[in-house]
Amino acid sequence: MKLLSYFHHGRPAWGALDASGQGIVDLGRRLPSYASLMALLEADAVPEAQAALQGAQADHALSDVQLALPIPAPRKIFCIGVNYADRNAEYKDGSSLPKYPSIFMRVPGSFAAHGAPLVQPRESQQLDYEGEIGIVIGRGGRRISKETALEHIAGLTCINEGTMRDWVHHAKFNVTQGKNWQSSGAIGPWIATADEYPEGYAALRVLTRVNGEARQDDTTERLMFDFAYLISYLSTFTELEAGDVIATGTPTGAGIRFDPPRFLQPGDVVEIEVSGVGILRNVVEAES
Amino acid sequence: MKLLSYFHHGRPAWGALDASGQGIVDLGRRLPSYASLMALLEADAVPEAQAALQGAQADHALSDVQLALPIPAPRKIFCIGVNYADRNAEYKDGSSLPKYPSIFMRVPGSFAAHGAPLVQPRESQQLDYEGEIGIVIGRGGRRISKETALEHIAGLTCINEGTMRDWVHHAKFNVTQGKNWQSSGAIGPWIATADEYPEGYAALRVLTRVNGEARQDDTTERLMFDFAYLISYLSTFTELEAGDVIATGTPTGAGIRFDPPRFLQPGDVVEIEVSGVGILRNVVEAES
Repeated sequence: MKLLSYFHHGRPAWGALDASGQGIVDLGRRLPSYASLMALLEADAVPEAQAALQGAQADHALSDVQLALPIPAPRKIFCIGVNYADRNAEYKDGSSLPKYPSIFMRVPGSFAAHGAPLVQPRESQQLDYEGEIGIVIGRGGRRISKETALEHIAGLTCINEGTMRDWVHHAKFNVTQGKNWQSSGAIGPWIATADEYPEGYAALRVLTRVNGEARQDDTTERLMFDFAYLISYLSTFTELEAGDVIATGTPTGAGIRFDPPRFLQPGDVVEIEVSGVGILRNVVEAES
Repeated sequence: MKLLSYFHHGRPAWGALDASGQGIVDLGRRLPSYASLMALLEADAVPEAQAALQGAQADHALSDVQLALPIPAPRKIFCIGVNYADRNAEYKDGSSLPKYPSIFMRVPGSFAAHGAPLVQPRESQQLDYEGEIGIVIGRGGRRISKETALEHIAGLTCINEGTMRDWVHHAKFNVTQGKNWQSSGAIGPWIATADEYPEGYAALRVLTRVNGEARQDDTTERLMFDFAYLISYLSTFTELEAGDVIATGTPTGAGIRFDPPRFLQPGDVVEIEVSGVGILRNVVEAES
């Protein structure tokens, strides 16, 4: 099932893709006790959404709605730094594999929805893409064991963890100001629920294209810190909650790694494709 | 005026301290259009709270309520790293003064309210204090100029930006996992509104005591990045919103800087005192 949040004639709503993938079933209307997709996840009620979707007619064409972030305002968005083995080598600083993941946070406003513009601001010409798989937490918890961690995944989504490269280096440590520009990244188009991954999450592909050209292409087989580890590690110190997002890291091939760097320019089309989810697509726009 | 959020017999409420400082006026009851202190700030309606407080009788004794975080769930909590000039020297790495501030983020759950326990978790014996002045944003905005930045301050509060020193070093960059342990820090007890600072914010004192012993003591005269700069800089990349918190950095003298380090132990009483606000007080408790 593909769960999504959207606006229809300006009204916020949530629902699911129909079987054709071209229509949207308004599940908020059918399940009025859940005012939002977040509320559904908080109630651990995804099976109710599945039942309501069964045999339902689409209420809208996908092309007639404006998608929102799948969870419009996650309480926490944790992002994992260098996580694909090759990227550690990219840094060429001779460092051995890290013992623990590097983690930073982003605010919801730093992400655009599917189809909304990625914003190149006046202050930086170094907007760069980072294609990633996003975990959306369903059932929350603290000190979740690696053995049970995957049961806490509501589903997966595509993330463009867009970055202002020059601002990442403003401080000696901490990348916050390079990672939190308004609408510099994107999340979406929807959440592919856990039942869509009967074989688990160990061999998923993430692929980034800019104007149709493949720039990043890797699989979760090569993650240094896999999904179960990340959920377990994060929940050691923080209470994970429904709707929390974990951006699991980006493969080699971001624009900064080219010589000369290939930063995004107005008009560029950025696509992030993740196994089982589909394609997150955004066009870069210069801020006026 | 001292604005606060609290629980009375388990019911969430918000209000203000009365003139005696020992009573609480329930402003939520008097201003029912604002369901929370956050809602008051969002409506830019602090003057209405001031008017309602005028001459009002206290509804509760301060000692009869349980204080909550002044803003129970801020959308963003930005923390500034090394900001008092001496702390840069403390690092003894010969580095010159930084050009831009170091910024990381914390989640609301990493903070306890005034009077609630600071939690020493099972996984770390290195809980440390960091006394700070917290800015609470009133009117939001983007690309706020330094000249007008102070008008966006709703008020100030005390912050103990409590840190797990060993977990801060888990990653080469980014301190997220050392800064986000559940109830490892504290915010409160209330927000001293901007009108309590007729002379501005340029010479405020922040003082940390552990079991009555002064450990940190400095003034905002020595900040490398002052309040106006921080608001202006942050709002360059992110939309600041009502209730957002900026922890403005801690003076020299955290426990890690002693030889041997003096980490917090169960039973320790930690007090953060900020000019015009008062004292935030918490006792350390080992997690069972």
